[in-house]
Amino acid sequence: MIKVGILTMSDKGARGEREDKSCEVIKEMIKSIDGEVQYYKVIPDDFDVIKEELFYCCDRLELELVLTTGGTGFSPRDNTPEATLAVVKKQVPGIPEAMRMASLEKTPQAMLSRAVAGIRGKTLIINLPGSPKGVRECLEVVMPVLPHGLDILSGRGGECGKE
Amino acid sequence: MIKVGILTMSDKGARGEREDKSCEVIKEMIKSIDGEVQYYKVIPDDFDVIKEELFYCCDRLELELVLTTGGTGFSPRDNTPEATLAVVKKQVPGIPEAMRMASLEKTPQAMLSRAVAGIRGKTLIINLPGSPKGVRECLEVVMPVLPHGLDILSGRGGECGKE
Amino acid sequence: MIKVGILTMSDKGARGEREDKSCEVIKEMIKSIDGEVQYYKVIPDDFDVIKEELFYCCDRLELELVLTTGGTGFSPRDNTPEATLAVVKKQVPGIPEAMRMASLEKTPQAMLSRAVAGIRGKTLIINLPGSPKGVRECLEVVMPVLPHGLDILSGRGGECGKE
Repeated sequence: MIKVGILTMSDKGARGEREDKSCEVIKEMIKSIDGEVQYYKVIPDDFDVIKEELFYCCDRLELELVLTTGGTGFSPRDNTPEATLAVVKKQVPGIPEAMRMASLEKTPQAMLSRAVAGIRGKTLIINLPGSPKGVRECLEVVMPVLPHGLDILSGRGGECGKE
Repeated sequence: MIKVGILTMSDKGARGEREDKSCEVIKEMIKSIDGEVQYYKVIPDDFDVIKEELFYCCDRLELELVLTTGGTGFSPRDNTPEATLAVVKKQVPGIPEAMRMASLEKTPQAMLSRAVAGIRGKTLIINLPGSPKGVRECLEVVMPVLPHGLDILSGRGGECGKE
Repeated sequence: MIKVGILTMSDKGARGEREDKSCEVIKEMIKSIDGEVQYYKVIPDDFDVIKEELFYCCDRLELELVLTTGGTGFSPRDNTPEATLAVVKKQVPGIPEAMRMASLEKTPQAMLSRAVAGIRGKTLIINLPGSPKGVRECLEVVMPVLPHGLDILSGRGGECGKE
């Protein structure tokens, strides 16, 4: 079982003015890798709020995987990547690269996604797009490598991560 | 209409010893997205000079798009990416990734480009290569997404940037 | 002739408990670009130790190319990218992007590689994976551009790096 947190970044959603469909897509998809959502929150696109929530997910809840949705674009209120970079100790550039590469095959707009991924302690944080469609496309790319990656990160994978 | 600045990085150019053909390519190409060049300067490959010019373009002139050409390679005087990173508040990694991916199909040397892109306030800065041919190839990749991206950045795009 | 250093990151290797086959792959492959290994060491996966060795290779030995192998994954002891980033003055993102893109065609696990590349003074540092197979695959990608890149970096390439 993988302990998962979902953070939805949305000013409107945090005010209760928008339904969070992206979260439903994530919940459904991660079942296939035995993911269990232990924390879920809709928060405003505020740098400090996002940072605090990420700290909480990593350091207090000790989740293995935190998936964010939204806030990775060009709007002045898109702060998810910057808050993520402020929290992680190690970047995992290959994950957003692979997600963008797959999305680019469908639309050139994919290059505007500023998503990042990184590690804090034993938690992997991955930024996903805001739309349900974008979430599905990007999560499909990264799902196949999550079980192995999280095994290594948690120490369950033993030495094989060091080969 | 998109307010554009062009900065050409070239020690030789700044001394008047080299004609700037890359600038002409940019000027011609951005017409199709209704871009108007409101600032253009040839400057030496000096970290501090580049940084000051970028600050001026973003904070004083409030340009929407600043395209740099040159200074992204392996020479000790190639300082454009570092000066750009010192100025932007948010990186846009998908833009240089997409440019390099397209260039890699033509030549492996593309992987030596250290170009970055990023946002400062309401200005998008994109590093382009130095050669007219490189400029054309890379600008072709990014042009299709510029109108939408800059609409979101300026606030003209309204809420759609937050979906 | 290109002056090359090889650093193998391996806690087990540094204790003499693991044979270093990746190093042999590197030594064999770089012959074709006239590379001569002037420094080789197996060191533990320790951030400070890696950093010191990289400083030594760049500032004291003035090597032109330092190839690291290992320590780029998800294990808590994988510190090679972070130590490399602490040492370089300029990043070369196109090199790890191109290596991951090539590896992704063989296995999705490639996106878990956190390898980076960068420049300190006249030295190019490139992180390679830990396994001999991974080293071969990634080095094949980057070898074709090394002679030209290192010529520019060292100043042997003259002005052509500035075009």
